[in-house]
Amino acid sequence: MSSFLEHLLENFKAGNISQEEALGKINSLYGYSDIGIAKIDDYREERTGIAEFIFGGGKSINMLKRILSHYIKSKRNCLITKLSNEKIGALKALFPELHYSKKAGLAWVRFKKKTPQSIPIGIITAGTSDLPVALEAFLTLGFLGHSPKLVSDIGVSAIHRLLSKKTLIEKFRIIICVAGMEAALLPVLGGLTGSPIIGVPTSTGYGTSFGGFSTLLSMLNSCSPNVSSVNIDNGFGAACFCHSLISSIMKQND
Amino acid sequence: MSSFLEHLLENFKAGNISQEEALGKINSLYGYSDIGIAKIDDYREERTGIAEFIFGGGKSINMLKRILSHYIKSKRNCLITKLSNEKIGALKALFPELHYSKKAGLAWVRFKKKTPQSIPIGIITAGTSDLPVALEAFLTLGFLGHSPKLVSDIGVSAIHRLLSKKTLIEKFRIIICVAGMEAALLPVLGGLTGSPIIGVPTSTGYGTSFGGFSTLLSMLNSCSPNVSSVNIDNGFGAACFCHSLISSIMKQND
Amino acid sequence: MSSFLEHLLENFKAGNISQEEALGKINSLYGYSDIGIAKIDDYREERTGIAEFIFGGGKSINMLKRILSHYIKSKRNCLITKLSNEKIGALKALFPELHYSKKAGLAWVRFKKKTPQSIPIGIITAGTSDLPVALEAFLTLGFLGHSPKLVSDIGVSAIHRLLSKKTLIEKFRIIICVAGMEAALLPVLGGLTGSPIIGVPTSTGYGTSFGGFSTLLSMLNSCSPNVSSVNIDNGFGAACFCHSLISSIMKQND
Amino acid sequence: MSSFLEHLLENFKAGNISQEEALGKINSLYGYSDIGIAKIDDYREERTGIAEFIFGGGKSINMLKRILSHYIKSKRNCLITKLSNEKIGALKALFPELHYSKKAGLAWVRFKKKTPQSIPIGIITAGTSDLPVALEAFLTLGFLGHSPKLVSDIGVSAIHRLLSKKTLIEKFRIIICVAGMEAALLPVLGGLTGSPIIGVPTSTGYGTSFGGFSTLLSMLNSCSPNVSSVNIDNGFGAACFCHSLISSIMKQND
Amino acid sequence: MSSFLEHLLENFKAGNISQEEALGKINSLYGYSDIGIAKIDDYREERTGIAEFIFGGGKSINMLKRILSHYIKSKRNCLITKLSNEKIGALKALFPELHYSKKAGLAWVRFKKKTPQSIPIGIITAGTSDLPVALEAFLTLGFLGHSPKLVSDIGVSAIHRLLSKKTLIEKFRIIICVAGMEAALLPVLGGLTGSPIIGVPTSTGYGTSFGGFSTLLSMLNSCSPNVSSVNIDNGFGAACFCHSLISSIMKQND
Amino acid sequence: MSSFLEHLLENFKAGNISQEEALGKINSLYGYSDIGIAKIDDYREERTGIAEFIFGGGKSINMLKRILSHYIKSKRNCLITKLSNEKIGALKALFPELHYSKKAGLAWVRFKKKTPQSIPIGIITAGTSDLPVALEAFLTLGFLGHSPKLVSDIGVSAIHRLLSKKTLIEKFRIIICVAGMEAALLPVLGGLTGSPIIGVPTSTGYGTSFGGFSTLLSMLNSCSPNVSSVNIDNGFGAACFCHSLISSIMKQND
Amino acid sequence: MSSFLEHLLENFKAGNISQEEALGKINSLYGYSDIGIAKIDDYREERTGIAEFIFGGGKSINMLKRILSHYIKSKRNCLITKLSNEKIGALKALFPELHYSKKAGLAWVRFKKKTPQSIPIGIITAGTSDLPVALEAFLTLGFLGHSPKLVSDIGVSAIHRLLSKKTLIEKFRIIICVAGMEAALLPVLGGLTGSPIIGVPTSTGYGTSFGGFSTLLSMLNSCSPNVSSVNIDNGFGAACFCHSLISSIMKQND
Amino acid sequence: MSSFLEHLLENFKAGNISQEEALGKINSLYGYSDIGIAKIDDYREERTGIAEFIFGGGKSINMLKRILSHYIKSKRNCLITKLSNEKIGALKALFPELHYSKKAGLAWVRFKKKTPQSIPIGIITAGTSDLPVALEAFLTLGFLGHSPKLVSDIGVSAIHRLLSKKTLIEKFRIIICVAGMEAALLPVLGGLTGSPIIGVPTSTGYGTSFGGFSTLLSMLNSCSPNVSSVNIDNGFGAACFCHSLISSIMKQND
Repeated sequence: MSSFLEHLLENFKAGNISQEEALGKINSLYGYSDIGIAKIDDYREERTGIAEFIFGGGKSINMLKRILSHYIKSKRNCLITKLSNEKIGALKALFPELHYSKKAGLAWVRFKKKTPQSIPIGIITAGTSDLPVALEAFLTLGFLGHSPKLVSDIGVSAIHRLLSKKTLIEKFRIIICVAGMEAALLPVLGGLTGSPIIGVPTSTGYGTSFGGFSTLLSMLNSCSPNVSSVNIDNGFGAACFCHSLISSIMKQND
Repeated sequence: MSSFLEHLLENFKAGNISQEEALGKINSLYGYSDIGIAKIDDYREERTGIAEFIFGGGKSINMLKRILSHYIKSKRNCLITKLSNEKIGALKALFPELHYSKKAGLAWVRFKKKTPQSIPIGIITAGTSDLPVALEAFLTLGFLGHSPKLVSDIGVSAIHRLLSKKTLIEKFRIIICVAGMEAALLPVLGGLTGSPIIGVPTSTGYGTSFGGFSTLLSMLNSCSPNVSSVNIDNGFGAACFCHSLISSIMKQND
Repeated sequence: MSSFLEHLLENFKAGNISQEEALGKINSLYGYSDIGIAKIDDYREERTGIAEFIFGGGKSINMLKRILSHYIKSKRNCLITKLSNEKIGALKALFPELHYSKKAGLAWVRFKKKTPQSIPIGIITAGTSDLPVALEAFLTLGFLGHSPKLVSDIGVSAIHRLLSKKTLIEKFRIIICVAGMEAALLPVLGGLTGSPIIGVPTSTGYGTSFGGFSTLLSMLNSCSPNVSSVNIDNGFGAACFCHSLISSIMKQND
Repeated sequence: MSSFLEHLLENFKAGNISQEEALGKINSLYGYSDIGIAKIDDYREERTGIAEFIFGGGKSINMLKRILSHYIKSKRNCLITKLSNEKIGALKALFPELHYSKKAGLAWVRFKKKTPQSIPIGIITAGTSDLPVALEAFLTLGFLGHSPKLVSDIGVSAIHRLLSKKTLIEKFRIIICVAGMEAALLPVLGGLTGSPIIGVPTSTGYGTSFGGFSTLLSMLNSCSPNVSSVNIDNGFGAACFCHSLISSIMKQND
Repeated sequence: MSSFLEHLLENFKAGNISQEEALGKINSLYGYSDIGIAKIDDYREERTGIAEFIFGGGKSINMLKRILSHYIKSKRNCLITKLSNEKIGALKALFPELHYSKKAGLAWVRFKKKTPQSIPIGIITAGTSDLPVALEAFLTLGFLGHSPKLVSDIGVSAIHRLLSKKTLIEKFRIIICVAGMEAALLPVLGGLTGSPIIGVPTSTGYGTSFGGFSTLLSMLNSCSPNVSSVNIDNGFGAACFCHSLISSIMKQND
Repeated sequence: MSSFLEHLLENFKAGNISQEEALGKINSLYGYSDIGIAKIDDYREERTGIAEFIFGGGKSINMLKRILSHYIKSKRNCLITKLSNEKIGALKALFPELHYSKKAGLAWVRFKKKTPQSIPIGIITAGTSDLPVALEAFLTLGFLGHSPKLVSDIGVSAIHRLLSKKTLIEKFRIIICVAGMEAALLPVLGGLTGSPIIGVPTSTGYGTSFGGFSTLLSMLNSCSPNVSSVNIDNGFGAACFCHSLISSIMKQND
Repeated sequence: MSSFLEHLLENFKAGNISQEEALGKINSLYGYSDIGIAKIDDYREERTGIAEFIFGGGKSINMLKRILSHYIKSKRNCLITKLSNEKIGALKALFPELHYSKKAGLAWVRFKKKTPQSIPIGIITAGTSDLPVALEAFLTLGFLGHSPKLVSDIGVSAIHRLLSKKTLIEKFRIIICVAGMEAALLPVLGGLTGSPIIGVPTSTGYGTSFGGFSTLLSMLNSCSPNVSSVNIDNGFGAACFCHSLISSIMKQND
Repeated sequence: MSSFLEHLLENFKAGNISQEEALGKINSLYGYSDIGIAKIDDYREERTGIAEFIFGGGKSINMLKRILSHYIKSKRNCLITKLSNEKIGALKALFPELHYSKKAGLAWVRFKKKTPQSIPIGIITAGTSDLPVALEAFLTLGFLGHSPKLVSDIGVSAIHRLLSKKTLIEKFRIIICVAGMEAALLPVLGGLTGSPIIGVPTSTGYGTSFGGFSTLLSMLNSCSPNVSSVNIDNGFGAACFCHSLISSIMKQND
């Protein structure tokens, strides 16, 4: 936030923007747009480094249309998560400029691109069935300006696949581990590398997988001390947490 | 069972036992002793290969005394499980011939020793805290005439400990894997060896370990197809299942 | 695994295969094929005795097509589980050589047939509704080269049906017990025979059956000590565990 | 209730009791005694056939003393359930006329004895550990004027024990089945006899027994259609339900 | 069972049936028909008083067709439960003689009608939404030869509706209480009448009703001691239990 | 209730209504209409201040038609909740006078309008996805004669939106807080205002939201002492509770 | 809050307090005292009408001593909840001016007494075992200046006890219903009176009561629309919510 | 790890250490000490940056004595977690050099001190009851060479306490948020700062807190995207994850 403000004041001092403009920007920093069904936090990216995201799961197509319209008109970055294929189809028909991934249930527009200072991030999946959630993390990190690597299908049932990627894995400074079932990949990764690992349990499975709850419990009870977890299928959240870690620690280090 | 009967008939034919004796033994095969609070299945070992065991968890010292008394008088093998230290102390004071392990919560008397045809069995624990349950399996297998090997504390958090035991592990024809927390040792073992693995979740842990329930769920959702599970902390059950597997399959193979 | 290697070296020594061929085979033993969305463990059958299986539950038809293609091209055995009828239809249309069972949700190709040393295996169901899961176990065992017998609908509600099959049941050296509801068939079988029993809880039921979870709990709390359990509806897993038991113990016994 | 009233009116008509007495009795039928901490339903036995019982689990010794005092003074039958040994000791010291069973956690006074028309009731336990709960049912039925038979330790793990009691079991017109673990005794009994069975799950067990919850789920999912269940360890409730069944159906039949 | 046998022997003695016929009947009493997918317990009604029922929930139309065919050919009573409307339609098209209720999910054929000695049974629902489950109980009791009364929509939210039916309710000797939500009707009925009450929790509700599980818990924790419960939505089971109670107790009383 | 009776008696005394009319009204106060599938509590609004509502979730269109018909014929207010869009369509086609909201799943007719003495009520949602439940509360309060204000989408993730509404919020004398996910809006509102807050957890979310159960648990464990909760998605219940509070306390205060 | 400020300003204007005093009070309104382990919200009572309460459950005696010390020194009202008898004993020994109730687990000091405008509040318990929680509500309301009435032991198992208190109950403008087990008292009260009811589930019970969770579920699923619930055993919370309702609505009404 | 190896080789090249020494060190890097009950990973700190920790929860005093002995003899850092006061007392008596915190359940010896490059870390608690878990995180971070700041008791119930620390909070580059109950502090912190937040749910609470499980669910469902969670009461794990983040990202940034 402060860098935005500092930049603004410097530009003002340098005569690049008028006093009116400067005041407007400062005033609006904590402003929002009230569009009836929603109050849109227009300056979130400036304030916190992450543009507001829209949880698409509980909203009708009409609600989404009104919200997305506002973003596009004001040329602001916007990411919608947990969209059904039907909703993506309807929104794409309305807004041709929309990017989307049906597999990941995401849609987005991105007007302003930032190239943040980044580090090697690995997104590792235990199996092919975990790909949609991994993709959610991958695309969200891309939306936020990072360039993660995706390594899929190296679960522990054939550990030589995992070991064959050991050199690559050791280069990752942060790992997002996307796994279903018993998620044994997480503690094994924790034993192979000292890097921090963010676990994303997936709802892949049947019977006592309880929609991913068993996987989450596995991750929370991991014997590896360098891990933490997010909600089931929450690839988006893992990506945002990862972005926030990098931004915050790198800023400190400058 | 049939071998017991065959042996009996052969002995009778050979004149080693009288008709009266033979009849008595046949008649009693499906008999039991009614001692009021319990009906003791005296011929279980002859019939099924496993002497009756007594679940000590829900019984008072007085109940246990009356049951144990009957076994000792009739010189029959007997194993009592899930005993508190207090109960073990009280029973040992009453029956000096009792063997016991306070760590494993077991007590037993063993009059008749069988030396079954056996195979290499490994009991592997993830951590030191899993030892009491592993001991329950170890001592039960010993009681049943086997000679398992116990390999403790080779969980995946430092995978080189596990790998250093690879040669030993590959020699085991059946593995009992005793683990708490996320039990990642189970699928990793399943990847290292084609041998069947019986998982015993332990109640070691806190918070979302839910007394071992999370560990059980991990085991049930394992991506390794050569595993099955027993109840939490049920080292005894894993040992019995293991004994039953070996007896049944070896018999077939004769 | 070692028998594969030994066989290879003997063939090489005998001049049946060239050095180049031998090296290629050894090198590739721990190899895999990276087809983008998946890393296929080509030599799993050689290494562990069980060809790689594909969990069909969380994969799109397109993913399955790409994976199956690879197997068929390299003429390797492959089994896909938990397939919907729709997916089976789509795959069959693409790969006419595919075998399948819509009832069991399985599809497979089998190029190399092994006739393993086997023993009598019984698959016993409590009711007719448990047949699809029993079929999954039955067909998987067949795929792995065994010849199990299927005895259906002998649950305890009319115990004379069960008793009428007593002689048959006593011949089984391993039993897979497939049951829903309260699964009382499992401990009653455990009382009738000393053979080891692998319990497969099914999701048949309503209300407090909680999708088979109550059945699983029943099995885990069984008073019979010669049982263990796998995940709900996991007929496949029970078959693999069974295969692994037989292979491992028979090998020992040679 | 009406029989009490009819009896009263007949006695009045016959001149056995005065008008004043008759009015007093009628008036008080719906009366209760307010002793501050409790409102005691003095005429419950006259109205419903079951004297009021006191749930001892959540009450202090002082509360119990005040309530019991009232019953003893008014010479009314009273049964207190779920008492700790400490509470029983304290109450017995205060009220020497108290009967009790520390094993069953019950204490009672019984001034008026009724000999109801009864039928053969069997209380059957799966194991010795289930005895305290069976005793709660046994003593409560005795308190209510019945003479149940207690058959203990005939669980299905050695089914010949159960079968040896088949003739006895077939004589019972109602069965209370007290079992822990997987409670397979319940459906097997349901297969052996057409009599109605009231299941009482016990909290005997460990791990996934979840304090008897798994046993309850087993009973609720029973494939036998002639069963119903009460709360865990609720031997008292099973006895009351049983008494209510007999009273209500026999009355009809007169 | 014995009455069937006695009747048979008397008929034989009186010369009404030949020896061959008598033997055939006795032999077949414990017989069953093996139709491949199912083993049909043909003589269940003779043995236990309740014709075999078919759980329709987990069976395909083809399975049901083969089972039903057998019953109709052998002119035996048959009741199928938990049928979808689609399955009922398909079966009715195949078997015009089939009776059914789409609301209750039941279908049945009834060749032999028994008029058992019966008593007044009340089926009472808390609300209109509970009617389908109540109907399941009502029709099953009718199938078993009883004539229950159905009193609907008298839940406690307007207690004068319940009180207006007090005289009717007091005439019932057994009550089946069908209720969803918090099921307060059950303990209030238990306070109004001394008759035994069988609780059937229904899955009516939303949010924390958890598909009827909360209702079941309410019933199991009832402060009324004259109640017991069956599985969620199990109107069928309540009817069978009720039938078994009446048959068993009335028989005793003869 | 008493005000209705007082008014009646005053009118009678004043000669406005005949004795016959007065008697009819008094008699019917505790009456109801029995229409077969339901017993309609016609005088509920007179007695309790809230017209009877119909839970539409578990009822067929035919059931709803018969119930609604009765209300419309007798010109009585009626509100139906938890209706699917399909049911609303079918009912509207039959009853053109029906009002409805497909978003809120409500339909109603309102013949008699009361203008109760009211106070400022705020309905506050955390996000746009919570609007349907908020609408259920909003419309129910309107049906009951209140004029709540709806403030949407001011969850804590951008706390300046909430703070910008602080003055408005402080004017509300009762707040209904409708929130999903972790519902942090509830305790933050509790810190900003001393007004009582009724929490309505919504089923918005995925993974460990468990259909709103996690949100409910959050609300029940709130550190703010001025809150209470209703069932998940129960906007209707919150509105009724709110109405009951205002009516009861205002009446006192008159 | 504003009344405190208005009062302050008026007093200042009237010359009753100096400018320094006025400033001090205004400044400190949002102040707190940092005593190391805690930050004490000294002016909470002035701001919100409820003095800060201390959750005693998770704090050591030493922590409580330091916090309580601060309150007593600054002569401010303070209430500590969920105290063990041991903690109460230790605190009373240190602070003789402390009031307490061991039954309710409460301790408090009250320097400033407010006599708020109040209304008739009823605290009603289903049974004697619910008294400790009812007492927590009773004493908290007293601490806050109200005079509730406590009516105990009128659960629905003997409904005439409840009906005998009907006139008293109808006078209550708000009811706190404290009940364990199935809590049927709550909806029955909801049917007898139009007053709002705050449900407090208690942990009284055993087996499937799950420490009061079943009772809470009952309350949340109540068919009465004029109810809401607080956490298990949270008599304190119900009292605070009740106080907040009365203060907020009465203020509006002035 | 590699820096340790590089350092070793450089020293060897420079002649600072002999070949023997170098070989010994390299050989032992993947070595461990087998002390019977445990296999101690002596070089963990060199390899991963975190000395091995000992989970004290499931180990007897004798086990802990043997393990700790080994560490102290080999002068290696060691941290034991989840120790009861009794265990700490016994260990301190045996090893006077032991440091400990009874509040946090930790004991440790620290021979080698590293001063890692660090950043401002804040540990923030919602209430005083959360202090023991916060202390576990605080002391573990200290053990790992960091200097976190502890800000306690600023939960949202009096939000001005939190706001008064806003400037301090904004300086933290990583925040560990330790909270019980509904943990609303977490998303509010997430709204106030863009820094990443690691949530540690505590088991503080009663009733539906379910030992901290409700708090964990709250955290996992947080609407703030910059958060992740660890197990209940796992202050230790949060500290290790935090250390791993800083080490890994800072290393990258060098």
